[in-house]
Amino acid sequence: MNVNAPIAPAEIQGAVAAEVERQLQAFRAEMEGKLALVRERTVDDAATIIVFSGDLDKVLAGFVLATGAAAAGLETSMFFTFWGLAALKKKGALGGPKNVMERMFAVMTPSSSESLGTSKMNYFGMGAVMLRKMMKDKQIATLEELMALAKDLDVKMIACTMSMDAMGVSKEELLDDLTYGGVATYMADAVRSRVTLFI
Amino acid sequence: MNVNAPIAPAEIQGAVAAEVERQLQAFRAEMEGKLALVRERTVDDAATIIVFSGDLDKVLAGFVLATGAAAAGLETSMFFTFWGLAALKKKGALGGPKNVMERMFAVMTPSSSESLGTSKMNYFGMGAVMLRKMMKDKQIATLEELMALAKDLDVKMIACTMSMDAMGVSKEELLDDLTYGGVATYMADAVRSRVTLFI
Amino acid sequence: MNVNAPIAPAEIQGAVAAEVERQLQAFRAEMEGKLALVRERTVDDAATIIVFSGDLDKVLAGFVLATGAAAAGLETSMFFTFWGLAALKKKGALGGPKNVMERMFAVMTPSSSESLGTSKMNYFGMGAVMLRKMMKDKQIATLEELMALAKDLDVKMIACTMSMDAMGVSKEELLDDLTYGGVATYMADAVRSRVTLFI
Repeated sequence: MNVNAPIAPAEIQGAVAAEVERQLQAFRAEMEGKLALVRERTVDDAATIIVFSGDLDKVLAGFVLATGAAAAGLETSMFFTFWGLAALKKKGALGGPKNVMERMFAVMTPSSSESLGTSKMNYFGMGAVMLRKMMKDKQIATLEELMALAKDLDVKMIACTMSMDAMGVSKEELLDDLTYGGVATYMADAVRSRVTLFI
Repeated sequence: MNVNAPIAPAEIQGAVAAEVERQLQAFRAEMEGKLALVRERTVDDAATIIVFSGDLDKVLAGFVLATGAAAAGLETSMFFTFWGLAALKKKGALGGPKNVMERMFAVMTPSSSESLGTSKMNYFGMGAVMLRKMMKDKQIATLEELMALAKDLDVKMIACTMSMDAMGVSKEELLDDLTYGGVATYMADAVRSRVTLFI
Repeated sequence: MNVNAPIAPAEIQGAVAAEVERQLQAFRAEMEGKLALVRERTVDDAATIIVFSGDLDKVLAGFVLATGAAAAGLETSMFFTFWGLAALKKKGALGGPKNVMERMFAVMTPSSSESLGTSKMNYFGMGAVMLRKMMKDKQIATLEELMALAKDLDVKMIACTMSMDAMGVSKEELLDDLTYGGVATYMADAVRSRVTLFI
């Protein structure tokens, strides 16, 4: 339509302008309501990685992906649960008193990220030694370097409190600056994430 | 523009209002079309978990996550495939006649959720016994309690028909109230999910 | 308001048309800006599968899911990393010179998709033989058939260059028509995907 159409008398112009604005206001409110409903169905630039495994190769993959996600601009969180909790253990920390079952679990699970084994070809630790040596030879970041990088990139690390409880692991045994939470904490991050992985 | 501008004669007001509305109709249709296109790119409040593993610890994690998702208000479905199918086996059910291969598989895979082993430290079943005992001591829900909870929370459990066919497992051997389907059934749920996990 | 209301006089028609168009221009720009912001928070019809495992059963699951996603109309990519890289090895290819560590890894990892073992019940390869035989008896597609199908369905297969570097695997040892990239390449696909899985 031609915007240079012949002009109507001034009083009509005013009435038209006011009516258009009035109807647009209602329409705007309606559209913004509809837009808000669609927006609720969208996601944030976020990624959420569950680290269930305590295998060195899998934990490494978790941190490679988490730092990669954070480097790509995603708000990234990692949820360490079950065997994955071992990756968050502070080296040499003793923790509180444990019952028999808890002591058995403590003996049978890795004491820190430095003693994780691999998921394949572990051969009493040989797999982990080889993997670490090959990565060093190739100047690929170690797990501990990746963990430091993740911290620098503000990756949120959540220790699963249910797993801590089940295995008798206390906060004193775990790294500093962790977030603590259960599946509800994980889910709150996951529902608004573009990438959700279980490792 | 001032919406309190002097009012034009009533008949002009009506004509203007009608004409504005008429012209806005095309615009509304255009905006709603664009909004619909964006909406197609969004997701439902849904979560979809593939349970590929038949390890007790992993199946447990699957049900903890599924019930957590359902409790968070997500429409949740679990797709049990490959070894994960064992978690759906009815205790003591015999099923139909099997060929030699199928009998070998039946002997080598767990006969129900109560005989699943753990992915780590299984030591001929010791790991599963310990894990179950520790969870009981800590009053954490057992797998069977979590499965009942999942049912109460309307978690949809899909038995993978391709895996049933490959392993010679019949519906009679599986729990009641399951949904049956293949990868297309899974994918239909997954594409509209906020959380997609492979366990 | 009744859109079939009597038509306004021509001068009002013209004035309304011009005023609607004038006010709509600003409004349209504003709404399209808001719509674009919401659109940025949406996803494409895409799926992204990380194949970390080199176990036959898990690689099979990866290809069943990838071809299922592609058949459902999703743009699908698979990222082969760590042990998963073995699934992309060309049968009988020798590759370049390797150092001692690389030779040890080459000996200890499968030489092509045809020599992958299973994650459970492998019994020195028996599990893989049984799984392959049962799938053949049931006329379920073999891994190699699924890989050919994935190629036909334009599934993008990405070989992880960091894993190739770490394990001393050269392009000559891998299948033709692969895409090469690292975690950033994966992440670019994953952030716009409806389905993200780690296998």
